[in-house]
Amino acid sequence: MSVVIVGSIALDTVQTPVETHADMLGGSASYASVAASFFAPVKLVGVVGTDFPKKFTQLLRKRGIDLAGLQVAEGKTFRWAGVYEWDYNTRRTLSVALNVFEKFNPTLPANYATAPFVMLGNIHPSLQHRVLDQVRRPKFILADTMDLWIETARPDLMKLLKRVDALCLNDSEARQLTGQTSLIKAGRALLRMGPKFAVIKKGEHGALLFSNGGFFSAPAYPLEDIHDPTGAGDCFAGALIGYVARAGRATPAVLRRAIVHGSVVASFNVESFSLNRLERLRPADITRRYAEFIRLSKFHAP
Amino acid sequence: MSVVIVGSIALDTVQTPVETHADMLGGSASYASVAASFFAPVKLVGVVGTDFPKKFTQLLRKRGIDLAGLQVAEGKTFRWAGVYEWDYNTRRTLSVALNVFEKFNPTLPANYATAPFVMLGNIHPSLQHRVLDQVRRPKFILADTMDLWIETARPDLMKLLKRVDALCLNDSEARQLTGQTSLIKAGRALLRMGPKFAVIKKGEHGALLFSNGGFFSAPAYPLEDIHDPTGAGDCFAGALIGYVARAGRATPAVLRRAIVHGSVVASFNVESFSLNRLERLRPADITRRYAEFIRLSKFHAP
Repeated sequence: MSVVIVGSIALDTVQTPVETHADMLGGSASYASVAASFFAPVKLVGVVGTDFPKKFTQLLRKRGIDLAGLQVAEGKTFRWAGVYEWDYNTRRTLSVALNVFEKFNPTLPANYATAPFVMLGNIHPSLQHRVLDQVRRPKFILADTMDLWIETARPDLMKLLKRVDALCLNDSEARQLTGQTSLIKAGRALLRMGPKFAVIKKGEHGALLFSNGGFFSAPAYPLEDIHDPTGAGDCFAGALIGYVARAGRATPAVLRRAIVHGSVVASFNVESFSLNRLERLRPADITRRYAEFIRLSKFHAP
Repeated sequence: MSVVIVGSIALDTVQTPVETHADMLGGSASYASVAASFFAPVKLVGVVGTDFPKKFTQLLRKRGIDLAGLQVAEGKTFRWAGVYEWDYNTRRTLSVALNVFEKFNPTLPANYATAPFVMLGNIHPSLQHRVLDQVRRPKFILADTMDLWIETARPDLMKLLKRVDALCLNDSEARQLTGQTSLIKAGRALLRMGPKFAVIKKGEHGALLFSNGGFFSAPAYPLEDIHDPTGAGDCFAGALIGYVARAGRATPAVLRRAIVHGSVVASFNVESFSLNRLERLRPADITRRYAEFIRLSKFHAP
């Protein structure tokens, strides 16, 4: 079953302690769509400028992504530049130019409105609301968010949480949104805000899934060679909803495996800049690393 | 098979945001011995002063712990006082009085020397060396350590790492000892320092096990009610070696289950002050929570 994914599409310039790459394909919708495309048909909603390189449109098309919802607006594509510190954990934004993204008004083509799975990538909550206003009773809605919206658009975000099935955010954002330092208490507090599921991403420590009467601790993956952490969270969420769409239903058991598949795809993505690694990823790579996740978290012989 | 456990025995005064309790049983050997006693016969090595309350000796004896190696020295028992911040994560030491512990010279009774399992609890590495000088070819030696010894006794500690099978320490200590910020790189670096196994405790994020050609990510446990985190690490290590001793061998598979049992016992310990919770813990409680750990980390239907 298909997934509608809305989010940003950007041209990223990323500096790490080792190298710098400019004007690469980035943005939450790009990462999430490509990640999801390994599991289910994807319908993208986003905006780019007239300067958006054809090779990037081709990259998305090659992954079978439906681009009927991709607007091309007069002007420049959203640009972001950032630098990672020596530990690859701390990131500083060097510059942001919203460009055509500033006036982005997500409009869903007719054939998008009945998609059973919807992912609201990391954009302003008011835009996430607008997408929900255009879909007809989807089976499952996943929302991603970030510190910026928790700070600047909390009322919109709180209303959104009552309209979605699952919220995905990282540990510091979960603490910020709930005011709880314990992640366990934060996870339970998120459920009280509306969604049936809360997913807390913990970077090198794995991820946690909260649901009523259920808790899942997803394993950490021993990744030694990180080249570019950009987009890891978007890939995680994209693969997660892609997996759920493939399964056709969002049971707690499906969500557990979806989260591990999210970790698998995210772990590949950080091995190279932009979407370079996912561009040449094969389904067999995913199967193999998923089997590794099983092995590295197994302690009880059945 | 039996375990020799050496470490400190203290009278602790602990302040939390909610309550304060004075002169409770504490110290690495107390916590570790009681935790290990649920799995295997324990032989304790430590020192107390003549002021050491009989009720605490009785508590240890009731758990079947062999106290032939418990020295009673003229003077006062080691005392420690500390306070936890509102998040129960940050701890400040308010006062330390080493008292009889200052001149502690661990001496093993004759029947201790052939114990097949040895745990070197968190004490000065030179004392840990002295214990190893008195044992005859144990099957498995586990050492615990802390930031203080990494800072002040690094050469002794580095030599110790060549004499032990496993090192157990928390995430910040692993980073401090190896100079690596990535825990994965830190774990691999620890193995290069000597031990066959390295166990990194991550508090609410679970634990990691490193061995040659193997990696295990132990799940986080959703503990909401923490009353006193003191001794959690010692309980973890004590239950770990107790479980290995009960299994009779330290294979990677046994160590994985040992780590989860360590997490189980530690999770009980923090539910109450001092050893109050472990004092009334029953084997069935451990079995039940171990089953919970299986459930909360399971994602792949076999």
